[in-house]
Amino acid sequence: MAAWGPRLAGVRGVLLDISGVLYDGGEGGGVPIAGSVEAVARLKRSRLKVRFCTNESQKSLEYLVGLLRGLGFDISEGDVTAPAPATCLILKERGLRPHLLISDGIRSEFDQIDTSNPNCVVMADAGEGFSYQNMNKAFQVLMELENPVLISLGKGRYYKETSGLMLDIGAYVKALEYACGIEAEVVGKPSPEFFKSALREMGVEAHQAIMIGDDIEGDIGGAQRCGMRALQVRTGKFRSRTGTSSALKKTPVPDQLPALQRGPRAALVTATS
Amino acid sequence: MAAWGPRLAGVRGVLLDISGVLYDGGEGGGVPIAGSVEAVARLKRSRLKVRFCTNESQKSLEYLVGLLRGLGFDISEGDVTAPAPATCLILKERGLRPHLLISDGIRSEFDQIDTSNPNCVVMADAGEGFSYQNMNKAFQVLMELENPVLISLGKGRYYKETSGLMLDIGAYVKALEYACGIEAEVVGKPSPEFFKSALREMGVEAHQAIMIGDDIEGDIGGAQRCGMRALQVRTGKFRSRTGTSSALKKTPVPDQLPALQRGPRAALVTATS
Repeated sequence: MAAWGPRLAGVRGVLLDISGVLYDGGEGGGVPIAGSVEAVARLKRSRLKVRFCTNESQKSLEYLVGLLRGLGFDISEGDVTAPAPATCLILKERGLRPHLLISDGIRSEFDQIDTSNPNCVVMADAGEGFSYQNMNKAFQVLMELENPVLISLGKGRYYKETSGLMLDIGAYVKALEYACGIEAEVVGKPSPEFFKSALREMGVEAHQAIMIGDDIEGDIGGAQRCGMRALQVRTGKFRSRTGTSSALKKTPVPDQLPALQRGPRAALVTATS
Repeated sequence: MAAWGPRLAGVRGVLLDISGVLYDGGEGGGVPIAGSVEAVARLKRSRLKVRFCTNESQKSLEYLVGLLRGLGFDISEGDVTAPAPATCLILKERGLRPHLLISDGIRSEFDQIDTSNPNCVVMADAGEGFSYQNMNKAFQVLMELENPVLISLGKGRYYKETSGLMLDIGAYVKALEYACGIEAEVVGKPSPEFFKSALREMGVEAHQAIMIGDDIEGDIGGAQRCGMRALQVRTGKFRSRTGTSSALKKTPVPDQLPALQRGPRAALVTATS
């Protein structure tokens, strides 16, 4: 068994990704990943601070938290750092009026945002809403702008549902970036600002925190670049032949993660910093 | 007026792009671009060899040529180099059985291709067929392959229809490349193999040929990298603030292109080689 003590020394806060770590979405809402309900409950009983840090942008926070509570998780809206509220703050600060390329599920998060005469595009994970027509409209709005601004809620490659791997928003971000010759501003993991706001909300310094996720880039690489420790679970989108472009050190896979009781499906990635 | 003689010295063959140069597609098939029907007729009456070199991959060659003839152009199927027939040759040579992400309009071109138990993905400009569901299926096929092969019929950013600029296949190529962590093989402009096959079919050497198109990368940059001269028209997708990453020298815009009678809307880009 791996020596866990030193790796977790000084950890005061735990950031948990949601999709692929707590549950897999899918038909009927989704299913909890084995052991996760208990792991969250145990973490909440411990002296560790716990916060959920998600790039979920298809569902509103209210819907997501309701879904997770229905699956048995001890979670409330105030426990979650999510990209839609962070995006609304940015839009207001910068006087941006977005054309929204989003799913109906998250539209309520943008109720207070002025969308008249758009001067930017905001895209969330629209799922089936990523039709040619909707993508083309967003493209045309950007091409009409003198200084095109594209804000994306996350940039993931794919995620896991109960039915299999699903194309994520990052693919569609790349599509618009290429067509328009621009680079999107990402709100969400792996943006350092997003991790920092989660740490602030948790009241913990980066070196005192560990991020637990299934995405080698968005969760693990992003957290490490912020000076946090990170741990990749073997659930969700984890694939043993997943490549990575970042300089991540992988340790041998332990049989068990005692601190989290996630069992034999977890892999540890240690911080390079 | 620019000195055209030296720039065109030794030219024996002319390669013409179709969409945005001969016509703009759109409702009811599209409309010819002013002067183009006459320019093609004049070229065909001249001593120059003429060939059409297109990345069109939404319509079958038969349909496209029928459409252009209906608009008044002197063109036959044997005059056209297009990516679908070139792709079918590659598939047969390499024993590839594609999952097809294509529009119904071009499906007949792949009638003789074995699509059982796919070991690659072939994508053409699917237009409205680029639904989330179809993109996700292609993504899933690629992710299941040990050595994922993605063949794309072109990689354009956008094209022009009568209703405005339209997102082209390249955006969706980038989407799948990013999601799967792979690089697509492009059949069509600006692939050197594609230009070379067009030159072979025309019986002209690269230094004796000029490519006329509206795409600064696909037409102009690609042809120049093959040692051809190239000329960018100011029709189709041409935009005065179009950027380019390639080392292209632009000359001042002439009032008129006497050789082609395209009038005041043409810009000349000279070969850097």
